[in-house]
Amino acid sequence: MNKKHQLIKGFSKQSKAAKLEWVANNYTPDADATVEDMKGFWHSDEKLQKILDGFSENTISNYMMPYGIAPNFIINDKVYAIPMVIEESSVVAAAASAAKYWSDKGGFKAEILGTKKVGQVHFSWKGDSEKLFQHFDKIKEVLHHDTEPITRNMRKRGGGILEMELLDFTDLEPNYYQIRATFETCDSMGANFINSVLEAFGQSLKIYVIENDDFQEEEEELTVIMAILSNYTPECVVRASVECPLEAFNINGKDNSAFAKKFEKAVKIARLDPYRATTHNKGIFNGIDAVVLATANDFRAIEACGHAYAARDGQYRSLSQCEIKDGKFRFWLDIPLAVGTVGGLTSLHPLAKRTLEILGNPSAEELMQIIAVVGLAQNFAALRSLVTTGIQKGHMKMHLQNILNHLEASEMEGEKVLKHFEDKTVSFTAVREYLQTLRKEYV
Amino acid sequence: MNKKHQLIKGFSKQSKAAKLEWVANNYTPDADATVEDMKGFWHSDEKLQKILDGFSENTISNYMMPYGIAPNFIINDKVYAIPMVIEESSVVAAAASAAKYWSDKGGFKAEILGTKKVGQVHFSWKGDSEKLFQHFDKIKEVLHHDTEPITRNMRKRGGGILEMELLDFTDLEPNYYQIRATFETCDSMGANFINSVLEAFGQSLKIYVIENDDFQEEEEELTVIMAILSNYTPECVVRASVECPLEAFNINGKDNSAFAKKFEKAVKIARLDPYRATTHNKGIFNGIDAVVLATANDFRAIEACGHAYAARDGQYRSLSQCEIKDGKFRFWLDIPLAVGTVGGLTSLHPLAKRTLEILGNPSAEELMQIIAVVGLAQNFAALRSLVTTGIQKGHMKMHLQNILNHLEASEMEGEKVLKHFEDKTVSFTAVREYLQTLRKEYV
Repeated sequence: MNKKHQLIKGFSKQSKAAKLEWVANNYTPDADATVEDMKGFWHSDEKLQKILDGFSENTISNYMMPYGIAPNFIINDKVYAIPMVIEESSVVAAAASAAKYWSDKGGFKAEILGTKKVGQVHFSWKGDSEKLFQHFDKIKEVLHHDTEPITRNMRKRGGGILEMELLDFTDLEPNYYQIRATFETCDSMGANFINSVLEAFGQSLKIYVIENDDFQEEEEELTVIMAILSNYTPECVVRASVECPLEAFNINGKDNSAFAKKFEKAVKIARLDPYRATTHNKGIFNGIDAVVLATANDFRAIEACGHAYAARDGQYRSLSQCEIKDGKFRFWLDIPLAVGTVGGLTSLHPLAKRTLEILGNPSAEELMQIIAVVGLAQNFAALRSLVTTGIQKGHMKMHLQNILNHLEASEMEGEKVLKHFEDKTVSFTAVREYLQTLRKEYV
Repeated sequence: MNKKHQLIKGFSKQSKAAKLEWVANNYTPDADATVEDMKGFWHSDEKLQKILDGFSENTISNYMMPYGIAPNFIINDKVYAIPMVIEESSVVAAAASAAKYWSDKGGFKAEILGTKKVGQVHFSWKGDSEKLFQHFDKIKEVLHHDTEPITRNMRKRGGGILEMELLDFTDLEPNYYQIRATFETCDSMGANFINSVLEAFGQSLKIYVIENDDFQEEEEELTVIMAILSNYTPECVVRASVECPLEAFNINGKDNSAFAKKFEKAVKIARLDPYRATTHNKGIFNGIDAVVLATANDFRAIEACGHAYAARDGQYRSLSQCEIKDGKFRFWLDIPLAVGTVGGLTSLHPLAKRTLEILGNPSAEELMQIIAVVGLAQNFAALRSLVTTGIQKGHMKMHLQNILNHLEASEMEGEKVLKHFEDKTVSFTAVREYLQTLRKEYV
């Protein structure tokens, strides 16, 4: 065992300051500088900082991500300025540029294709499968009845349990069955609601086989393995699209048909090659996650669902599609998005609350539309760059600027560095070294 | 057109303050409060704030995510305290708890299975496919030669271009070919390096078919559609694992064989059912993304690659696997992770720099191991909860505490609320209403 660092007991019980000091003292060479750095990121409002600390555990600081605005999004004839939280350069600029591009071509359209959420009770049971299926109508009644106190408020809001299905997986795994249920959770993402219902389902199911006389003693043991929502929601899907006459689809008013064909081909390639599809979809999620983060929704859930959906036909494919037909250019994206605008952290994180305000306090359905549109816009901008100038030039310019900011280069130094690196590869070390040479020259 | 909001010209050219005012005035009811709120999240050090603003565009504020520490991770016999950036409750606590659980069972092991990155040049070409393949050895030489100035520094560090493959996709899409290349990028994620090389490949390829006499005039037109890295890196993979004698695998020293079997079954279910696999993998990424974020690596790239990898055999499956054999419990995770510890934002974001310091300034390979282990730990903790007590109880307790913090409940109020909601569904509205009732009682 490497003795350099020791295990610690009772870390979680220590104060925030003590935790920070322990980490700084044990894991960083200049403990005072670490503490000062980390504290520099604390919010000056103590109450607000306490709220942020409450979201997670063992917190010692806040990680800051840039919060930017992509204006001029026309979605279903309404103008939005869309908050985006992202640390990658060019993403917000690309979104804004795509929004502007489509603003004089009718803007973006979006429609909800479904809002069903999914949950599962996984259980083991040794017995006559047919008997279980015969009882399932009765079981459903019992599960509905037993969860009435939990579903009451959701039902008042127009939601609740939609359907329940009994699935027999015993050919794949001995004695393994599943109840797959669907839910309508209105404006909430619904995780807590669904999980509470499912755990109650599990309890009721166990009791049902014990109490029902039809089941013999050896059939009375039903083991609930897990009861939890599924993040895979292929029926909670939104479609975002753009469409225009082919002659309007151009860059700086020229070269439209070649551009359109190249664009269409780029999308087709991402449909047929998983290597390309991964990067193509990654670009879509650059936009999607930025809005998901800004509204304090859960981007891991959105990512997992979207990528599993991209692989639903047996090959991992592009989520967006493109078609040139009858003189029209069409580009669209179908994507599952289980998000909420009430509950969870949406109203607890002070900036998420502001994001929703800026978006006009949308319903969950409207937010799905906004997020999908930003994903499509991002994809459009990335493909437009890729099939025309390539992305590297823009990226390197941004990266160079970041390095100059970091090294606190003056305006004059910046100009010299930009000129020097016009035809060279940009790296942190190379820029720092060149800047050192420049600075030596002054002395 | 909804006239409520107007399109704006030249937004990106405005100052940060002007952008913030425009958003506040046009999209929020209380503009002054919005501005004050947003400014409250600015870093007090102006130079540092400028660095953060440089990462993205149109920034008006910073989004704060809790930065926490999961201590007591033993990985390959070394003790780590791991910074995690995540806004979801229970994730850091679960990681810390899994770390502690395995700390007296030999800790976690991790090994690199490969570090190859991938890039693609997609092109259209009308001509004799065989001829292109015959020339490919010569083409490879030219591409190597032409990119020597770009690859020089990377080669010095032990990296560079590894292999190039010519792929014929013309049966799927007319005239479409691809060069798929692999790269070693050492401690950098390598996106800029790979993209620069690939764009140069595209240029050289175009010139090659024009200048080589073997190609007829009608074969001289080669259109590069795109030249860009692939985020799908199935040969840049790390394995994290834990292993112990079955009798040591227990909870509070009891019930080990039933627990182990249930645990194994839960993993198997996630192997065979995509609905479960999505949520199972989402849990893995809760851990992975938290470390990826804390090191300023790109979580969208990591997510896209990991989920595409989960679908590589034609069905979306669990990324982790479990086996009980010969009296031993084994649980492991193979996951592609293309991350860097130099370049990109890793040394530009001040907190990412601190994260790397806390982790002992790891190489990219060591960071891959750390990240994979946190993913496995997270998965372990989630499954342990799921197959024993269920996750809802813990979640609701955390959520209730968050709501109490937000509503600034006193300690006495908090106790009353906790008691009241012991057997009730927690929601923001329900808690606020109950708290209002309580507060009225004082008057």
